Amino acid sequence: MMYSDIPAAQTLVLYFKSKGVKNIVISPGSRNAPLTISFTKNSFFNCFSIVDERCAAFFAMGMAQHLQEPVAVLCSSGSAMLNFYPAVAEAYYSDIPLIVVSADRPSYRIDIGDGQTIRQENVLEKHIGYSANLKQDVSHATKTISKYGESLLGNSQQEVQVHNEKEIAKALAVAFDEKYPVHINIPFEEPLYGREEEPSVRIQNVEIETGLGTPTEENWHELAKIWNNSSRKMVLVGVNRPNAIDKDVLEILANDPNTVLFTETTSNLHHPDFFESIDSIIAPIEKSQNRQELFQKLQPELLVTFGGLIVSKKIKAFLREYKPKQHWHIDTKKANDTFYCLTKHIKTNPNQFFKRMGANDSDESDFKTFWEKRKDNYERKRKDYLKEIPFSDFMAFDRIIKNIPKGYQVHLANSSTVRYAQLFAMDPSLQVFCNRGTSGIDGTTSTAIGSSIYSNMPTVLLTGDLSFFYDSNALWNKYLRPDFRIVLINNSGGGIFRILPGKEDTEEFETFFETSHQLSAKHLAKMYGFDHITAKNENELEVGLEEFYSSSERPKILEVATPRVLNNKILLGYFDFIS
Amino acid sequence: MMYSDIPAAQTLVLYFKSKGVKNIVISPGSRNAPLTISFTKNSFFNCFSIVDERCAAFFAMGMAQHLQEPVAVLCSSGSAMLNFYPAVAEAYYSDIPLIVVSADRPSYRIDIGDGQTIRQENVLEKHIGYSANLKQDVSHATKTISKYGESLLGNSQQEVQVHNEKEIAKALAVAFDEKYPVHINIPFEEPLYGREEEPSVRIQNVEIETGLGTPTEENWHELAKIWNNSSRKMVLVGVNRPNAIDKDVLEILANDPNTVLFTETTSNLHHPDFFESIDSIIAPIEKSQNRQELFQKLQPELLVTFGGLIVSKKIKAFLREYKPKQHWHIDTKKANDTFYCLTKHIKTNPNQFFKRMGANDSDESDFKTFWEKRKDNYERKRKDYLKEIPFSDFMAFDRIIKNIPKGYQVHLANSSTVRYAQLFAMDPSLQVFCNRGTSGIDGTTSTAIGSSIYSNMPTVLLTGDLSFFYDSNALWNKYLRPDFRIVLINNSGGGIFRILPGKEDTEEFETFFETSHQLSAKHLAKMYGFDHITAKNENELEVGLEEFYSSSERPKILEVATPRVLNNKILLGYFDFIS
Repeated sequence: MMYSDIPAAQTLVLYFKSKGVKNIVISPGSRNAPLTISFTKNSFFNCFSIVDERCAAFFAMGMAQHLQEPVAVLCSSGSAMLNFYPAVAEAYYSDIPLIVVSADRPSYRIDIGDGQTIRQENVLEKHIGYSANLKQDVSHATKTISKYGESLLGNSQQEVQVHNEKEIAKALAVAFDEKYPVHINIPFEEPLYGREEEPSVRIQNVEIETGLGTPTEENWHELAKIWNNSSRKMVLVGVNRPNAIDKDVLEILANDPNTVLFTETTSNLHHPDFFESIDSIIAPIEKSQNRQELFQKLQPELLVTFGGLIVSKKIKAFLREYKPKQHWHIDTKKANDTFYCLTKHIKTNPNQFFKRMGANDSDESDFKTFWEKRKDNYERKRKDYLKEIPFSDFMAFDRIIKNIPKGYQVHLANSSTVRYAQLFAMDPSLQVFCNRGTSGIDGTTSTAIGSSIYSNMPTVLLTGDLSFFYDSNALWNKYLRPDFRIVLINNSGGGIFRILPGKEDTEEFETFFETSHQLSAKHLAKMYGFDHITAKNENELEVGLEEFYSSSERPKILEVATPRVLNNKILLGYFDFIS
Repeated sequence: MMYSDIPAAQTLVLYFKSKGVKNIVISPGSRNAPLTISFTKNSFFNCFSIVDERCAAFFAMGMAQHLQEPVAVLCSSGSAMLNFYPAVAEAYYSDIPLIVVSADRPSYRIDIGDGQTIRQENVLEKHIGYSANLKQDVSHATKTISKYGESLLGNSQQEVQVHNEKEIAKALAVAFDEKYPVHINIPFEEPLYGREEEPSVRIQNVEIETGLGTPTEENWHELAKIWNNSSRKMVLVGVNRPNAIDKDVLEILANDPNTVLFTETTSNLHHPDFFESIDSIIAPIEKSQNRQELFQKLQPELLVTFGGLIVSKKIKAFLREYKPKQHWHIDTKKANDTFYCLTKHIKTNPNQFFKRMGANDSDESDFKTFWEKRKDNYERKRKDYLKEIPFSDFMAFDRIIKNIPKGYQVHLANSSTVRYAQLFAMDPSLQVFCNRGTSGIDGTTSTAIGSSIYSNMPTVLLTGDLSFFYDSNALWNKYLRPDFRIVLINNSGGGIFRILPGKEDTEEFETFFETSHQLSAKHLAKMYGFDHITAKNENELEVGLEEFYSSSERPKILEVATPRVLNNKILLGYFDFIS
């Protein structure tokens, strides 16, 4: 064991130990040396070194998402921590307890022209659960500060210690209890490399109550009455952790003839009676001559939602136009008014909520059976359509998703990937994740790698080319497991822009929307030690997929080249075909 | 010509035209389509498409740095703009007018669970000259907003238009006059792709006075008296634009026997009588038995500084300990109290200041001659040292810097590169740049490429391996000039950490400080179409350098492999040798 001799560094490390923050992702630097020394020299901690801070933060976030516990990411002073920000925003909206620790210069070194110095305090404040601004240790600083004739900021070391402990404890409480990302900023004075075998600091183990998560007192009887008297209930599930919902709750919901339950791949819920492809239901209505009549038929009296953000734009547009009488959101933490008709935020977890509602005992409506017929229809037509189309994104996603071996953790990139994935059923044994908090393309690969580290399942990432090349530094990672797999669907640009209204076949479109390119992953695969398989047609994809999941000494990339210009026509054609 | 049909988009574009913001770097997205359409369909603008927003912003910043005029960088909504932040902080501290334009969702779409939506307003506020938060056009929004039963925010379209124009004008004034980065956030409602051949908006061309840059009224006579009566003057120049200082001013300063003028490579000032390697003067004093006596001999009565941030840590430590009686900083905008003894911020430009001071007419002191002898000494010894050392960073930098052809623009990466570069003289025909605002390693390559685009000189970037691989996405750039050159000094990790006190040869050190790696640029070179030359010893470097600058159809990387463990010993040995 070894500790920095700086009290604030010891204090942080002792709190992390005491509260059980074990995993520390470290980007290199000198100002953070007191913490790097203390973390890496204590066997309690598992430390990971990642140079690019943007990747480091997404990696840590993926790990925290998987472990469902706080993971810390540490950097030096200066612009370093600004590179954490994309992951912090994602963590903020996805309820992931990422702990950002930034080493800082003492306050009298800020804005006086020193290098690697910015205004770090509160810099993430728009997307953070708590910003803990620690104070410079007086005991460690005395010599240097007084040399420059500075005051000691009016604090005694005792006051600084009390302040710092309270701030750290508050940040940790918010991370653990509220599942928000938090930021702890620590100014360190030189010398930075002093160390001690035993900590000189004794921490008080300050306990902070966050007060969050207290269930609301509801009139459960009243709610159950509304639930049971509604003949047209819709349950819509956003991003939801695998195995979060009890089997008997799923059975109750599946057997309720008055409930249509819409899932997305990111809902991680499976039952033959659920509706797994929202857009395959809604797109045909949008195209129908009986649009209004059909939407009214789908319009629920009561909408119950749980989980995080919804992928389908179509269901959002529908529910905003055909509002339910009531919208209840079930979540211990927060409720988004996504459809501008939220009537209740019920602060409990979905299992408890649905158990309290009980089984439906009102008259059976035709609400569900009507939509089941349409579901059977699109499922049948989808099969037919897949038989007649040429090789394309649509076909590739069908094959890729069908062929994921049971028991994989599946990470989906944003944009095209997550949208295509909604059109095909996932095997119930798969656990699906996607950065839907901000829905950015900026850190998917890093997130997937972070999430894979401690998983008892192997991981496959499905990604498009823009997401993949954007986060190419993710591969600069020495912790990659040999069973890590990436399926890269490379359609040479932002294919999704071709399906947007208003697109056109001009050079401007190709350059500034689609951003077409000729990049391949083969060079990155060589650079970072991945096996690399390519597939340019149906046969090659079939052969490639077999080889792809076989065990190996190195991780693998399967790069599937699809036709840039054709893809969107086939996707739009699908919705015509099933209509 | 073609314009988006959204008034706010037209207004921004018309203001950019009117004020002369011609260069627009665009990262792809849908929410920013109204601006992308308007910029790319107007021949007034030069548009550049770059996918990774972090690179896009540094690229734009490099271009703005070179042109000395505002350059805009545009992105879609969501986490995209957070990736701009590292470049924004650099621009903030380096006085570069980067204009960040972020497309946003309408305010009623924020924090309700929509994708690609964060709290964009004021998110850069800690490091920005101005945050212009535009309002949603009522005329364009009416249909959609009223559909959802929202109020129209209490504004008429007329009020929105007046607000938006004022905000844009203010942001542009701050960018143009104060050389700060600014942020313009614009919410757009769907539909996003509507267009018109002529703008329907007529702008008022609002003029805003920023009031900055007004010279202070000084008692010039009094200042000149102090200047001329000081027998020990030190002029220290930070980051300074090439050709900023008049030749006759340089002659006056060079001929003043009572003035020691310290430059850095980033000062872009050259005269045989200036002191070009600060650390080669100070390191021997630090090691001397007569440390205090020598430092007192070097301690100036009057310190005059101009330019941006100082690279040398040694001169900062020295001047903080041996403070001058007076420190004047000459700059029209701001003055950092870098040495905690600033007595005057003289708001004028250095040419005017030194012309007003006039030639020295007081008694000649031995201040300069004493240090000139020591300068002659280290220059001679440096030559001797270079003859006896093995191949290493130190030798490589000597050869590389000596061999840069005349008339190049030289970009230096941070950390090791910029520090080594201080030890060797640059040819006066070279123009030197470095991101010293935050001194980050995060965007050097992108900055250099951006700076090269309009340069009438070819560009060479000298970079270390961590900086290079960190910003590898910079190479994903279709605007690269065939005469762009990168010298990559690859010492397999963060070599600079080896020279810090407290380092040790342990696995922790190699992993978490040095972050040693075995990466080479050869795969990236293939991927992005660079020629790639390698050099592992003195001979190969000599041969490689000849080939390297020859004209070519593709840009080139010269990768110089130096011995990771030996480098720091040779660097430290240099300071011993000259002492």
